Amino acid sequence: MPGARDCGRSCRCPEVRRRLPVLRWLPRYSLAWLQLDLMAGLVVGLTVVPQALAYAEVAGLPPQYGLYSSFMGCFVYCFLGTAKDVTLGPTAIMSLLVSSYTFHEPVYAVLLTFLSGCIQLAMGLLHLGVLLDFISCPVIKGFTSAASITISFNQVKNILGLQGIPRQFFLQVYETLRRIRETRAGDAVLGLSCLAALAGLRAMKSHLPRAASADPLAARVSYMIVWTTATARNALVVLFAGLVAYSFQVMGSQPLTLTGSVPQGLPPFRLPRFSLAAPNGTIPFETMVEDMGVGLAMVPLMGLLETVVIAKAFASQNNYRIDPNQELLAMGFANILGSFVSSYPITGSFGRTAVNAQSGVCTPAGGLVTGALVLLSLAYLTSLFYYIPKAALAAVIISAVVPMFDAGIFRTLWRVKRLDLVPLCVTFLLCFWEVQYGILAGMLVSGILLLYSIARPSIKVSEGDVLLVQPGSSLHFPAIRCLQDIICSHALAAPSPPRSIILDCCHISSIDYTVVVGLAELLQDLHNHGLSLIFCSLQDPVLQVLLSADLEGFQHFSRREEAEQAGAVALGGGRAAPFTSSSQSSVLPTGFIQ
Amino acid sequence: MPGARDCGRSCRCPEVRRRLPVLRWLPRYSLAWLQLDLMAGLVVGLTVVPQALAYAEVAGLPPQYGLYSSFMGCFVYCFLGTAKDVTLGPTAIMSLLVSSYTFHEPVYAVLLTFLSGCIQLAMGLLHLGVLLDFISCPVIKGFTSAASITISFNQVKNILGLQGIPRQFFLQVYETLRRIRETRAGDAVLGLSCLAALAGLRAMKSHLPRAASADPLAARVSYMIVWTTATARNALVVLFAGLVAYSFQVMGSQPLTLTGSVPQGLPPFRLPRFSLAAPNGTIPFETMVEDMGVGLAMVPLMGLLETVVIAKAFASQNNYRIDPNQELLAMGFANILGSFVSSYPITGSFGRTAVNAQSGVCTPAGGLVTGALVLLSLAYLTSLFYYIPKAALAAVIISAVVPMFDAGIFRTLWRVKRLDLVPLCVTFLLCFWEVQYGILAGMLVSGILLLYSIARPSIKVSEGDVLLVQPGSSLHFPAIRCLQDIICSHALAAPSPPRSIILDCCHISSIDYTVVVGLAELLQDLHNHGLSLIFCSLQDPVLQVLLSADLEGFQHFSRREEAEQAGAVALGGGRAAPFTSSSQSSVLPTGFIQ
Repeated sequence: MPGARDCGRSCRCPEVRRRLPVLRWLPRYSLAWLQLDLMAGLVVGLTVVPQALAYAEVAGLPPQYGLYSSFMGCFVYCFLGTAKDVTLGPTAIMSLLVSSYTFHEPVYAVLLTFLSGCIQLAMGLLHLGVLLDFISCPVIKGFTSAASITISFNQVKNILGLQGIPRQFFLQVYETLRRIRETRAGDAVLGLSCLAALAGLRAMKSHLPRAASADPLAARVSYMIVWTTATARNALVVLFAGLVAYSFQVMGSQPLTLTGSVPQGLPPFRLPRFSLAAPNGTIPFETMVEDMGVGLAMVPLMGLLETVVIAKAFASQNNYRIDPNQELLAMGFANILGSFVSSYPITGSFGRTAVNAQSGVCTPAGGLVTGALVLLSLAYLTSLFYYIPKAALAAVIISAVVPMFDAGIFRTLWRVKRLDLVPLCVTFLLCFWEVQYGILAGMLVSGILLLYSIARPSIKVSEGDVLLVQPGSSLHFPAIRCLQDIICSHALAAPSPPRSIILDCCHISSIDYTVVVGLAELLQDLHNHGLSLIFCSLQDPVLQVLLSADLEGFQHFSRREEAEQAGAVALGGGRAAPFTSSSQSSVLPTGFIQ
Repeated sequence: MPGARDCGRSCRCPEVRRRLPVLRWLPRYSLAWLQLDLMAGLVVGLTVVPQALAYAEVAGLPPQYGLYSSFMGCFVYCFLGTAKDVTLGPTAIMSLLVSSYTFHEPVYAVLLTFLSGCIQLAMGLLHLGVLLDFISCPVIKGFTSAASITISFNQVKNILGLQGIPRQFFLQVYETLRRIRETRAGDAVLGLSCLAALAGLRAMKSHLPRAASADPLAARVSYMIVWTTATARNALVVLFAGLVAYSFQVMGSQPLTLTGSVPQGLPPFRLPRFSLAAPNGTIPFETMVEDMGVGLAMVPLMGLLETVVIAKAFASQNNYRIDPNQELLAMGFANILGSFVSSYPITGSFGRTAVNAQSGVCTPAGGLVTGALVLLSLAYLTSLFYYIPKAALAAVIISAVVPMFDAGIFRTLWRVKRLDLVPLCVTFLLCFWEVQYGILAGMLVSGILLLYSIARPSIKVSEGDVLLVQPGSSLHFPAIRCLQDIICSHALAAPSPPRSIILDCCHISSIDYTVVVGLAELLQDLHNHGLSLIFCSLQDPVLQVLLSADLEGFQHFSRREEAEQAGAVALGGGRAAPFTSSSQSSVLPTGFIQ
């Protein structure tokens, strides 16, 4: 979405343009964008239909519920989303979560969608998007790299035509390798051919020379053909594979695993049901909420997390910015409106978002095509999707997610900032176990590193006539005990004559009450040992806080030289500074002059 | 514990002195300290016996388990503790937690003690004491103020002689007020007299003039008598009340509620049992662990939290420092050894710690007396404790905890740092509901304020010939989006001619990879708009990180003036700086000179 890059522009726009991002790109919509959006929407649509059927099974719901969940998110996101690549819909992780909380009962699933949407909407309205700034770059890189491996490998079974492979990554690898002899030749040949074709077309596109305007017409036309083919490669490959499968079908033999038949008919548009008629009486709303329990927190949170991590990853890859609060609103609305058409909870799909981006989508309008395709397929076209070979779809997904694997990040972090390898590796490794645990653990680790660096800031200490202590950055409350310990250990480990200590606060831009109390304790402590503590280079807000706290024995000077001079005078006098407050900066306190 | 204040000394001590804090104060132990420790230990012992019996009931265990839990903690803490005032033992909150996880079965409770001790020990050995720096001053103040109110009010029922008052604070207030007419005259008269006596003696002590050495002998003797009476006031009041109750008993009428009879006999010293013989077969260790479930996390964590919050509160009030890691070790050992004498999980007790501090305890040796008293009472003396009126013990507790209420903190925070009123009020109010929720919520709120201040640091922007941007403190990863937005919005909202932007990094002492990536995006972004970003005043570690990241278009100067000059040259040239890397500081890049 090109408009999102104009970071200065949104400030001059009215609130309505911020809340309806569609208004930012619609006025500039062009035919070129339309072509690309149509193509991408079509490819994503062709991907989502078989995935939706599979994921509904994972969620423990009848297959049509997968399709019911696949169109409303696309429509809503087109109007409210800020990332051009993201597609909302059913995903593997969310389906698994849903299966744990809804007891294979659609009424529960739809109510969970409604309630999750309300919670997400509330988070968006409360501007909790700031939470998403706490997902650091190493966590995102670790997640995307691990996800590209697991999603690719998840499709290997479809390339090989294997059935009944478990979902968990390690079991999947084990079972796939164990049963590799059961590979179906037709699926494998088609799948690998599709992969090769996609890789070739992709390489062709990236090596395509720019069409210079001086070229003859023929050259320009051939350039356009190559470019279109390369860009529409996903749709073309799926179409071609479908034709191959249809030919085999017509000839009476079928060596390929097909998507198969899909039940027809649109879902009704109605409010979700707030109670459930069971054999032994109606289950009321409160009982249903109680039954879903912790799912009401897990589902909306994991949904948000997945969407924004994906949105951030693609925004960074394709050089645009997302508005996290707007993403929350979009997610919330998508789920609330989705619950009106019997959807189960949806979120951003990594695989389809990657397909979308790779197909060259330009605006979220691609989602309209995807949604329309799902609706059409539900109403009329299920018979056409019947012939799509699963191996071809697998090839599309694999070639979409493989480029997301960034092996260079490990080397880069080793060179630039080794400590950041910790959250990267934690996220990367745990994502193979469970994606949500990987992301949460990575955030936790980077949060811990962040908090540790705050609790143990760099403090420069230089010993001389006076002891000069300079914290490297602002003092927050977890750091005060560390500062006290450093000052005390240096001051009291010194040779016998008592000295002055100067605390250079030039890098401190704010302090809190705990720090004030800690400094008061420190002043008292040092005074008991006959030492004086002199503050210098205080920034205005910090000085105001310290003055208002009325610390006993608080002395300060605006420049370090003055403080050093005062400290030297106190040292020369052979005794500590008198324990009185001197709030007159730049003037030696009277106690020193006498 | 006077030794704890010599913060510089511990550095020169061998590891063993740090791990056995008893070695720091024992060599300097004096007769004066002994007197005070004896007195305090006695008073705490007189308090803990009836409390232990009551708390065992709360924990759903036979009454003697309360006493079994009351001595090992005192002994262990004497050798390993770093806070002179803290007394470990059964507490109301811990008893309640224990009752939720041990199914009224002592074998479960003792095993929980053992496992909690192991977890606490592991946390101590892993130096997780740094976690406790994240308990800010407003949280501690909110907790102590609320606890002093709830604990005082909890004793009002004993002063009034009311039975069967619920534990929950609000219900307690309601029930106490509703049933105030049922007040027993004897209890009320005795309780209020004790309160008055304690308040009077306390006031006397604080107004006692210093005994000048020139005074005659008689004056000095009378001074000593008054001082001893005032200091031993808790023990004296309890003794006096016991005598009154005994007199009534002898006379055949008893208007007072007494502590009553306590079962006799010491617990056996043996390993906790790791399985339980049940009517339908033995329950193995794994099943018991599974049954206790989340209790295995809650009990050790709440135990640590309570102990260190109390230790920090009294350390701050009485001007000494605690070593949090050592406190964890002490807690862990106390629980592990406690499990050998059939103790249920113990922790620091606010009420008894306050009594201990008020009685003028000098070292943790007071705990030896308390522990010995509990052992003696278990073995022989239960008949003597029979006569202690509950109202007198209630008066001791109330007069100990009331001074912990700090009404001035609200005014002080309003004056010094209003934002810190939020964690204070959250902690204060929620502590009336449940103490552990109050503390956790307070820590959460102060953590959120801390993280918010990191995600949204103060950034000074001054517009002129060049745009000068100066972050007020170090840039951590949550802040980078904010910095990007501020720079973009200022740079792109400016009048038409493109300008240079100078990022003054003098206050930045460290950056992480996410910030590096964010700066690279920013450089790219601004370059796309024909603007150049120039860094200046980079500290060495930050410069190293940025150079190793090999940012495209990275220019830096060591002084701001040079950067401004370079920016002005770029401005004069009417175009943005060339997009090349210049790592030679203090030298104009060649692009500018041509």
